[in-house]
Amino acid sequence: MAYFNNAATTYPKPAELYDAMISYYRYNGVSIGREDSLVSKNAETIVQETRNQIKMLLQCDAKEVIFQSSATMALNIIIQGIIKSGVYNIYISPFEHNAVTRILYNFEKQNIIKIHKLLINHDLTFDFERIKYQFDAIKPDLVIVSHASNVIGLLLPVEEIFTLAKKYDSITLIDMAQTAGLVNCNLNNEIFDYVVFAGHKTLYGPTGISGFLMKPDLKLTPILFGGTGYDSANQDMPHQLPERFEIGTINLLGIAGLYSSLNWIETVSINNIRTVEKDNRKKLVELLSKYWFIKLIGNNESLEYVGIVSCLIDGISSDSAGVLLNKYNIQVRTGLHCAPLAHQFLNTYPTGTIRFSVSYFTSEKDFNELEHALDNINKAL
Amino acid sequence: MAYFNNAATTYPKPAELYDAMISYYRYNGVSIGREDSLVSKNAETIVQETRNQIKMLLQCDAKEVIFQSSATMALNIIIQGIIKSGVYNIYISPFEHNAVTRILYNFEKQNIIKIHKLLINHDLTFDFERIKYQFDAIKPDLVIVSHASNVIGLLLPVEEIFTLAKKYDSITLIDMAQTAGLVNCNLNNEIFDYVVFAGHKTLYGPTGISGFLMKPDLKLTPILFGGTGYDSANQDMPHQLPERFEIGTINLLGIAGLYSSLNWIETVSINNIRTVEKDNRKKLVELLSKYWFIKLIGNNESLEYVGIVSCLIDGISSDSAGVLLNKYNIQVRTGLHCAPLAHQFLNTYPTGTIRFSVSYFTSEKDFNELEHALDNINKAL
Repeated sequence: MAYFNNAATTYPKPAELYDAMISYYRYNGVSIGREDSLVSKNAETIVQETRNQIKMLLQCDAKEVIFQSSATMALNIIIQGIIKSGVYNIYISPFEHNAVTRILYNFEKQNIIKIHKLLINHDLTFDFERIKYQFDAIKPDLVIVSHASNVIGLLLPVEEIFTLAKKYDSITLIDMAQTAGLVNCNLNNEIFDYVVFAGHKTLYGPTGISGFLMKPDLKLTPILFGGTGYDSANQDMPHQLPERFEIGTINLLGIAGLYSSLNWIETVSINNIRTVEKDNRKKLVELLSKYWFIKLIGNNESLEYVGIVSCLIDGISSDSAGVLLNKYNIQVRTGLHCAPLAHQFLNTYPTGTIRFSVSYFTSEKDFNELEHALDNINKAL
Repeated sequence: MAYFNNAATTYPKPAELYDAMISYYRYNGVSIGREDSLVSKNAETIVQETRNQIKMLLQCDAKEVIFQSSATMALNIIIQGIIKSGVYNIYISPFEHNAVTRILYNFEKQNIIKIHKLLINHDLTFDFERIKYQFDAIKPDLVIVSHASNVIGLLLPVEEIFTLAKKYDSITLIDMAQTAGLVNCNLNNEIFDYVVFAGHKTLYGPTGISGFLMKPDLKLTPILFGGTGYDSANQDMPHQLPERFEIGTINLLGIAGLYSSLNWIETVSINNIRTVEKDNRKKLVELLSKYWFIKLIGNNESLEYVGIVSCLIDGISSDSAGVLLNKYNIQVRTGLHCAPLAHQFLNTYPTGTIRFSVSYFTSEKDFNELEHALDNINKAL
């Protein structure tokens, strides 16, 4: 099996994660914040240390780390919480995922908010004069930008966009589902209000543990309620972070896995991971470009990307291409990638593309298997 | 260490769970519903088989299984979704957890709903004539009952309550966080609309995977939005279950663990687990009753309980008692147990109680350690 679906979830995880996670859980698998004892102190310690590791690796010690079960859950809590406080004009990039657009659509159809799309040139560059013109015409209350498109891997100039947005006093939200632990931003910068991360993607952790970072002084209205093991007599959610937004039993098993993967990232270093991943993307683009029947989508080599490449195969629908590649045991993801908006922009809507995505662990063997498959497809066409 | 905090999370898990879960995740840790291939088919298969196991074990094949990260999240999705559809009068038992009451309080303070408490006698029995009188006076739109109190372990007569509630066309919600996989209800019965379960408690699974059951024909309004890997072009949430309520990447690691624990439950059988746990509760009550300084709370031996016992220690606050027990490495949970309402009813508010909770795995060694600790406390008092 050659795995080119790392944008869905990185696989494999760092080799040591599996045993470290399970051995931790075997000996410390109790609930935290619910009693006061040695074993649970250990659990509390690992949760705290995982928060600290995130702050250190993502260079965001001025922000608070809030764990959630998925990036989608984090986006719901942030976006719905902000909307509750009364914002109206929300700008998004043309690359936002359904985890953003479906939330917004639900409120727009009730006339509670209005969605605006940031203008972007056809060569995928941003013209900040045009965006300034947009913001002058309709002031942004909230600007949401994916750091990297989950369809084509393009890195968006989020620092420039948010610097401009802050001149209009907008709230800002960056979705780093495809970049946390891979591409550093200066997240301590005041231009970043909310930052979403996915534990099981570029942070190389297990499923079930993700979250967000926020400036501790922001007033975000909770949309979910429940016990936090803290201030239990109070029927309002506590104001203290992270408790205000971490309801129910924390996923200690997931935390143990994330703790292990973060330690691995620290050891290898984000710069090295990025270098290897960039190299893997380059190999992928070169390999795909060899074949006359493959057309790359949204690829402008003068821009910066993460390890995601979308393409079409001449004369074959994306879905059929996926089935064909799977016959050769090549794992890709085809279709809309939960991002119909991006495909509309790329003119690949509604059939979508074939998406290949690499990680630090994508190997020569993977590339050889892919080449073998493409050679055979070439012969058959 | 003697672990008497199984009501927070059961510990240990079945011995085989740790290795089974991690070995599954090591070889199959890819996202499901996002591509079409052999390995991901395996992931899809295990998720489907876990749903089937729940239906089989909980005897609820007429209901749909929806996975969530925690019982608290499941309760938010159900209760807020029902409130969105316009219910007003919501009845709850006096034993509801903050996972229920904090949600309701948020809406009651905005005058969107009204909370009513089901009347219960001081000996912890229900007088259905009085409840009928309540329902006649103010018709119930939604009735929420915990199958067992997380403070004293009392099993509530939920079938009788819901049978009565259905005569008033009320929606019903049973919280089985402390009973799923331990005490069977006839969940296929039409009196049960929604059923919440916690994977990491009486189902003996890992943290991070819980969920709910619902009648497939109920119209529940989604409160959370995002990608489901299904019907991606649609900006509304799909109507299909479970996709309508399962947003973001599913917790495959957690599912693998739950799958393993469900298989263990099937092998041992729910009846045997219940028998062993009842026996452990009996031992616990007998042991605690030996000491003059321990006062059991909410214990009426003519009623049915799960393995949870609350008590007070004469002259010592619950918090101090917890610290004292922890010195002897006895794990309990003290205070309000995220259920201030229950403590108000039991007259143990706001200081709470000391809660001991057993599981199938509570051993003679645990009881011996507890006896040793209590003997020493006795000498010191």
